[in-house]
Amino acid sequence: MFQRILVPYDGSNGAERALIKAVELAKLCGAQLTVLTVYRHHSMLEASLSMVRGAAEIGGSLDEAMRGTARDAADYAKSHAKDAGVEKVSAFIKAGPPARTIVAFAKEKGCDLIVLGSRGLGATEGYLLGSVSHKVTGLATCPVMVV
Amino acid sequence: MFQRILVPYDGSNGAERALIKAVELAKLCGAQLTVLTVYRHHSMLEASLSMVRGAAEIGGSLDEAMRGTARDAADYAKSHAKDAGVEKVSAFIKAGPPARTIVAFAKEKGCDLIVLGSRGLGATEGYLLGSVSHKVTGLATCPVMVV
Repeated sequence: MFQRILVPYDGSNGAERALIKAVELAKLCGAQLTVLTVYRHHSMLEASLSMVRGAAEIGGSLDEAMRGTARDAADYAKSHAKDAGVEKVSAFIKAGPPARTIVAFAKEKGCDLIVLGSRGLGATEGYLLGSVSHKVTGLATCPVMVV
Repeated sequence: MFQRILVPYDGSNGAERALIKAVELAKLCGAQLTVLTVYRHHSMLEASLSMVRGAAEIGGSLDEAMRGTARDAADYAKSHAKDAGVEKVSAFIKAGPPARTIVAFAKEKGCDLIVLGSRGLGATEGYLLGSVSHKVTGLATCPVMVV
């Protein structure tokens, strides 16, 4: 019933739970699974430090380190899905604000389901937190499963 | 992968979309589908009018009318699911605040997925609204799919 499932993955416990459900659903539906790891780039930090000697290099290497960590997370999730028996898996990384980047990416790729983790907080805490999952649920144009 | 799917149903467009997805998922998983229609009871209204002659009857008949409408909605959703080929379907109505009633009911019945509609508003409107789906997503102890 779903053809292209997007699972945003950042290595957190919630993302792990989401990955497990997304893998199960992808197998059940024969769907293509797309992993997306979003990281924040530090060009703003870089700009604010632009008068400090060597700041460009610091900003640049921060960006590079974050991109590397994101790449590792995305690759891990892809391997996990492959090992679990999902045939069609691809993994992407993107820099930007998490919720809007996830929603825009889902639209661009024509995904018909986003599976993502909650923070795993129960009752009041979970309810009060304005989290990425809340924003994605509100902004997405396709169904969203919060795990 | 899901064994007992709960679909809160109030007859709105969002609930219709949720019902369609819940039916598809229930068939795919061979899951039991449980429909829940929540209505607000008017005992508070009744109490505030208690010094007015005949108020108890007005409150009573309001409650009765709302219960009747809820029953109709739940029965409609159940028939729809049966006609669409879901084998195990049951329908319930409950009075109370929507989100908390849905979450408590899901827990009580051991549901492993709640499928519910969003208000169907795009972009900013959807994001800004503090809706039932946001509350359920934050409070539930099982995965929630917002359609």
